[in-house]
Amino acid sequence: MAEDLHVVIVGGGFGGLAAARELGNRPGVRVTLIDRRNHHVFQPLLYQVATAALSPADIAGPIRSILSRYANVRVLLDEVEGVDCHGRQVRLRDAGPLSYDRLIIATGARHSYFGRDEWAEHAPGLKSLEDATAVRRRVLLALERAETEERPSRREALLTFVVVGGGPTGIEMAGAIAELARRSVSRDFRHITPHCSRVLLVEASARLLTAFPRDLSEKARRSLEQLGVEVITGRPVMALDEQGLSIGGDRIEAATIIWAAGVRASPAADWLQADRDRQGRVRVAEDCSVPGCRGVYAIGDTACFIDGIGMPLPGIAPVAKQQGRYVARRIMGRTQSPFRYRHWGNLATIGRSRAVLEIGRLHLSGFLAWLLWGTAHLYFLVGFRNRLSVGLSWAWNYLTFARHARLITGETLPAARPAAAE
Amino acid sequence: MAEDLHVVIVGGGFGGLAAARELGNRPGVRVTLIDRRNHHVFQPLLYQVATAALSPADIAGPIRSILSRYANVRVLLDEVEGVDCHGRQVRLRDAGPLSYDRLIIATGARHSYFGRDEWAEHAPGLKSLEDATAVRRRVLLALERAETEERPSRREALLTFVVVGGGPTGIEMAGAIAELARRSVSRDFRHITPHCSRVLLVEASARLLTAFPRDLSEKARRSLEQLGVEVITGRPVMALDEQGLSIGGDRIEAATIIWAAGVRASPAADWLQADRDRQGRVRVAEDCSVPGCRGVYAIGDTACFIDGIGMPLPGIAPVAKQQGRYVARRIMGRTQSPFRYRHWGNLATIGRSRAVLEIGRLHLSGFLAWLLWGTAHLYFLVGFRNRLSVGLSWAWNYLTFARHARLITGETLPAARPAAAE
Repeated sequence: MAEDLHVVIVGGGFGGLAAARELGNRPGVRVTLIDRRNHHVFQPLLYQVATAALSPADIAGPIRSILSRYANVRVLLDEVEGVDCHGRQVRLRDAGPLSYDRLIIATGARHSYFGRDEWAEHAPGLKSLEDATAVRRRVLLALERAETEERPSRREALLTFVVVGGGPTGIEMAGAIAELARRSVSRDFRHITPHCSRVLLVEASARLLTAFPRDLSEKARRSLEQLGVEVITGRPVMALDEQGLSIGGDRIEAATIIWAAGVRASPAADWLQADRDRQGRVRVAEDCSVPGCRGVYAIGDTACFIDGIGMPLPGIAPVAKQQGRYVARRIMGRTQSPFRYRHWGNLATIGRSRAVLEIGRLHLSGFLAWLLWGTAHLYFLVGFRNRLSVGLSWAWNYLTFARHARLITGETLPAARPAAAE
Repeated sequence: MAEDLHVVIVGGGFGGLAAARELGNRPGVRVTLIDRRNHHVFQPLLYQVATAALSPADIAGPIRSILSRYANVRVLLDEVEGVDCHGRQVRLRDAGPLSYDRLIIATGARHSYFGRDEWAEHAPGLKSLEDATAVRRRVLLALERAETEERPSRREALLTFVVVGGGPTGIEMAGAIAELARRSVSRDFRHITPHCSRVLLVEASARLLTAFPRDLSEKARRSLEQLGVEVITGRPVMALDEQGLSIGGDRIEAATIIWAAGVRASPAADWLQADRDRQGRVRVAEDCSVPGCRGVYAIGDTACFIDGIGMPLPGIAPVAKQQGRYVARRIMGRTQSPFRYRHWGNLATIGRSRAVLEIGRLHLSGFLAWLLWGTAHLYFLVGFRNRLSVGLSWAWNYLTFARHARLITGETLPAARPAAAE
């Protein structure tokens, strides 16, 4: 009897999980999934943790539990330090070398500051639970400081929130901060009023949501403006420090800046010494395999897959999931055709009762789009318990405007202040 | 018209909140409540966050929201650095000096390692949300490490969990860890089985729960043993390091040690240069005032109040709440009689369906005690939203044995490992 084919999957995001599920409980295959965190995060809702609407556990679950029903899948909490393509081994930091027959790399992406890495300290991004609670901490601390600050210019800076990047994450973040700063907190504070705070969304290109049709970009912009967000397009960030930033030539003093502008792939291309695009993504063949590395596949945000019209596929969850399932089927010999991405549509939410949605020729905005957005996200959340909890939190927030997770945690107050508000 | 009496409350725990609520919306009084955190924590349920049954936001809420309905109460996120009793001022780190007419100190307590502060690093305690998520992180990481560890002795140490201290917190912690390590995780891991793990509860005195009647101590012990906890009484911890500890003369290798053995009051006695007991608590008069400091009161875990039979009142929530209400009424001139503590009973839970309960002559244990425990804690939780969420989490956990909040967050994996498992 032949030995089972050993498939190693690196990364427990949407792509890695989809591949593991497809391979789960199949005869002739055993799977090892490696992640340096013990949990899968439902990234599309991270901004709700960052704005205190949901708790971390609402949008994350242990990878082990998610895959526990598959007897042939092993989960390893470890970190990959390199890949030996010729020896077919992954080098793990704790467990040492691990041999594979097939390797699926689904390690995702991090923020990119376009070469200005020093900006990271002052403008955190939003990729992990830690990022989200750090942003939550900043936003809430800024409000607390503003409440007691007596110098008008300083108070104004504390109440200025800037989101850099006009893609779906930036839009969702700006809308949610506007709701948090202008509505949810208004009854709790004595000195700051909703009208004191200023939320800006800055996008370097000519319009928001460049992946969406033009009419929906325009609708998103109008919805944001109704929420009180100032939208600035066509002007890039020129400078950024802990006191504020320069947009085009204009200086804006702001204590809280959130980065949603660019991503850079994980170092997978370095491990494989593979060809990469400008964002560091591994250029893959039409079956998602990595040229020059036999038996190695790259999927999701780690991969640069050129579609039929010569464009790279976007870094969104549906691409990662479909690639994960496809590669798993390919490895099992269940498909021979090249990968083809099936685009269902684009969805972005802007705040309470507002969203934009594109499915084929259907363009929707407003309350109906928002309901569809909520239903779709609840449906895709992993695990029944989370769905129930998130559904209830949303219903509660909608009815009461409350934000139940408004906790400032992390380091104790003294150590945290310089970074947070000064 | 006379100016309103300015009451400053330091600390947003049970005592401080009770005082603020009693003073809220009363004529002739204005209140400033100062806390260095923005949230109140329901400490009796911290152990459930530490064992992944609840999320931080389930047991905590912003102090601002809790007190928002009282127009005469102002909440300040700041830290007290000292008190000038003669000038009637509190020195705040950010806001500088703040004058008061009456001062209520309700700053609680921290862990005490009985002079062995170097143990703190290896045996964290459980007083704040950060403590709870740090303990959760340790417990979950130990299980992850054990899953891949191949040396039997090291694996054994990773699967040994020691709780030091046999009071209510220690008992609850030991019971919850036994359930987490032995049941909840059993289906998710491939190599470790429920029987591999060992949970020890160590108490220096002759029996557990010394504040409870003897028969309930015995019942608690038997319940813990049924859950698989080894109970060691009458033997103190002699030494403790990152690899394990010595109990009496016996060395036990353990990667996870949790401290629930002793508390030390906050530095309030230093601020006031007041008389204190061995635990650092301010000795107060029969109206909870601090002798030698006019207009200053100390309540809850910060105070040493000697009751009618010459014993100090215990550091539990009902004492703090009753003292808070009493002092508020005293300040308003609504009572002249000395403070008298009304003892309702003692309650401790041990795990799924097990608790011990004493109300007057009634001694209860088992399922009924557990139901009463759950009801009482839900009732006292602050805010409807939390009650609903906690109630649902409990019902879900009870039905499924699941622990939905099993997230390892905090620093990324590399930096955390030395402290966590090695």
